[in-house]
Amino acid sequence: MRETLAEWRPAVDEAIDDLVPREIDAEYLESFFGEPTYEYDPDGIQRALSDPLWDLLDRGGKRWRAVLFLVFVEGFGEDPAEYLPYACIPEILHNGTIIVDDVEDEAAIRRGEPALHHLYGQDVALNAGNAMYFLPLKILTENPADLPAEQRLAAYEMLMYELNRTHLGQGMDICWHNEHEVRVTPAQYLEMCACKTGCLGRIVARLAAIITDQPPEVEEAVANYAELTAVAFQIGDDILDVENSLGRAGEFGKEFGNDVREGKKTLLVIHAIEESPPDRAQRLQEILEANANTDEEVLEALSIIEEAGSIEDARERALELAAQAREEIDGLDFDAETSRKLREFTQFVIDRDV
Amino acid sequence: MRETLAEWRPAVDEAIDDLVPREIDAEYLESFFGEPTYEYDPDGIQRALSDPLWDLLDRGGKRWRAVLFLVFVEGFGEDPAEYLPYACIPEILHNGTIIVDDVEDEAAIRRGEPALHHLYGQDVALNAGNAMYFLPLKILTENPADLPAEQRLAAYEMLMYELNRTHLGQGMDICWHNEHEVRVTPAQYLEMCACKTGCLGRIVARLAAIITDQPPEVEEAVANYAELTAVAFQIGDDILDVENSLGRAGEFGKEFGNDVREGKKTLLVIHAIEESPPDRAQRLQEILEANANTDEEVLEALSIIEEAGSIEDARERALELAAQAREEIDGLDFDAETSRKLREFTQFVIDRDV
Repeated sequence: MRETLAEWRPAVDEAIDDLVPREIDAEYLESFFGEPTYEYDPDGIQRALSDPLWDLLDRGGKRWRAVLFLVFVEGFGEDPAEYLPYACIPEILHNGTIIVDDVEDEAAIRRGEPALHHLYGQDVALNAGNAMYFLPLKILTENPADLPAEQRLAAYEMLMYELNRTHLGQGMDICWHNEHEVRVTPAQYLEMCACKTGCLGRIVARLAAIITDQPPEVEEAVANYAELTAVAFQIGDDILDVENSLGRAGEFGKEFGNDVREGKKTLLVIHAIEESPPDRAQRLQEILEANANTDEEVLEALSIIEEAGSIEDARERALELAAQAREEIDGLDFDAETSRKLREFTQFVIDRDV
Repeated sequence: MRETLAEWRPAVDEAIDDLVPREIDAEYLESFFGEPTYEYDPDGIQRALSDPLWDLLDRGGKRWRAVLFLVFVEGFGEDPAEYLPYACIPEILHNGTIIVDDVEDEAAIRRGEPALHHLYGQDVALNAGNAMYFLPLKILTENPADLPAEQRLAAYEMLMYELNRTHLGQGMDICWHNEHEVRVTPAQYLEMCACKTGCLGRIVARLAAIITDQPPEVEEAVANYAELTAVAFQIGDDILDVENSLGRAGEFGKEFGNDVREGKKTLLVIHAIEESPPDRAQRLQEILEANANTDEEVLEALSIIEEAGSIEDARERALELAAQAREEIDGLDFDAETSRKLREFTQFVIDRDV
């Protein structure tokens, strides 16, 4: 999968450049957005849209959503090169959510540089992020692969389903974060991940199935694969934060325990509060609720999580989800190469150690 | 039109309540957003979505976008009551843009109360605003009026066209606001209004035309009517700020000249800078660029605008746009009552004095 990512990345970036050029002119605006009633201001739109978008994209990112889409398309027996504009849909959407999330979280840094709202102002950053929600959806109307009307409608309906659930997931996550008490069930945590992270994965998979006209059961199987992999990825993230923190806590001057410091209600925290003796659960809750914690307190919280067996519990769940994801793929008629890539992708997601 | 607004408002609010109930439960979530993979958290979604949405709606608003939609539907010979869920599409979209705009502008007050991000936090407010971009679009998939596939697809394609242009308009406006120099042409200013304010009006008109299956030339005529009326409305806003400020400048303790204080590049400012003698244009530019101005300076700027004949110029343009809007309606086969309402609506927009 690593080679596939490297192989397709330049073509994906070229396809994005076709949709939102680095240099905006009146001709592009007219052809993509339609004729103006009066007169566009290409300079303004350069600064409002193209500059922030390309600033973020040029900072990196593997474009794995676009590439996973192309892997599916190839697995469905079609030529990926013909569907490059569609591969940009989840990729631009994803980068739009990054800009908006950073405003919501008041993040300082993104991909090693100041978050976009610090460079362009909150107004420009937010409007660019939101524009990146709608701009990719217009690709379906442009219809570069000459899809029949039913497929275009199916794609729109799918996108509205998934993008609505994305906002439910983000809503749950934000609300829990603003609450003091940990009152969430493991099932609700998994649902939050399935909505917030999973839906964009589902868009990748379902869009590939819809535009290549797969039967509903195939679309569902690849959607489940993508969702399960995304949820496993999210849990892997939570595990890594605790494990790396426990390993790093002795090192002088290194930050550790960020999730605990932020009071994040991860699957591990939810498990530890459910499974610890009442006084330890109470103590963990206290540390999470506090506005600031000493290193010793953070370490204490991490120990409570470790002693409750929450790391093993989370790892078991992640492995189980990854196994389920692979089963979805095994039930399909993909060629050996595609199956290998998809299994490798899921494996990569739970194996990574950074 | 005033009676029509009062008449329909309760039914519109009931229809919105059907789409996003004031009290969220698992059953609603499942029926509107689809079955969860694991388990929803209705309490979280109550606070993330329903509470902010209804807080804003309960503060007022005439629901004129929904009502204008219903007037069109009736004019096209259909029963408005059957299309109430569709009337909510532009209304929820509009209220979503209000929440997001207030974050972008760092507004303190909305409809006489603290802006939503001050009450719910920037994260909740923004996510709710963005959820309100996608939630109404799902109504087309729910398909309450049992529309054939072509009409649903046409509605989605129309919405993507207009919502993309909305973000172009907002992008131009924000960029100009952040720039010091006034370098915009009147045509670009009108385009900004047509995109930013006009597109939501166009959505109202085109959606009514699409779901009642009108021919393309009718859809285009009502879209033009709505756009022209919206642009006239925007210019009316700019005129009012200058006129009320000139009238109020002598009154002790009253705020005046808000647009000048904000450095807003209105049509009047653009005209005044083009038409004034170089030293006066230069002075106006200076006052607009300054971070803070005394009352005397604001008054000086307003006088430059007045002396340039910019108020008359703007009023002529607004009247011309309103006349064009009425012509679009006169060319259609509406019954006398619908034509009267639509003419009245355009008249109201340019006549208002608050």
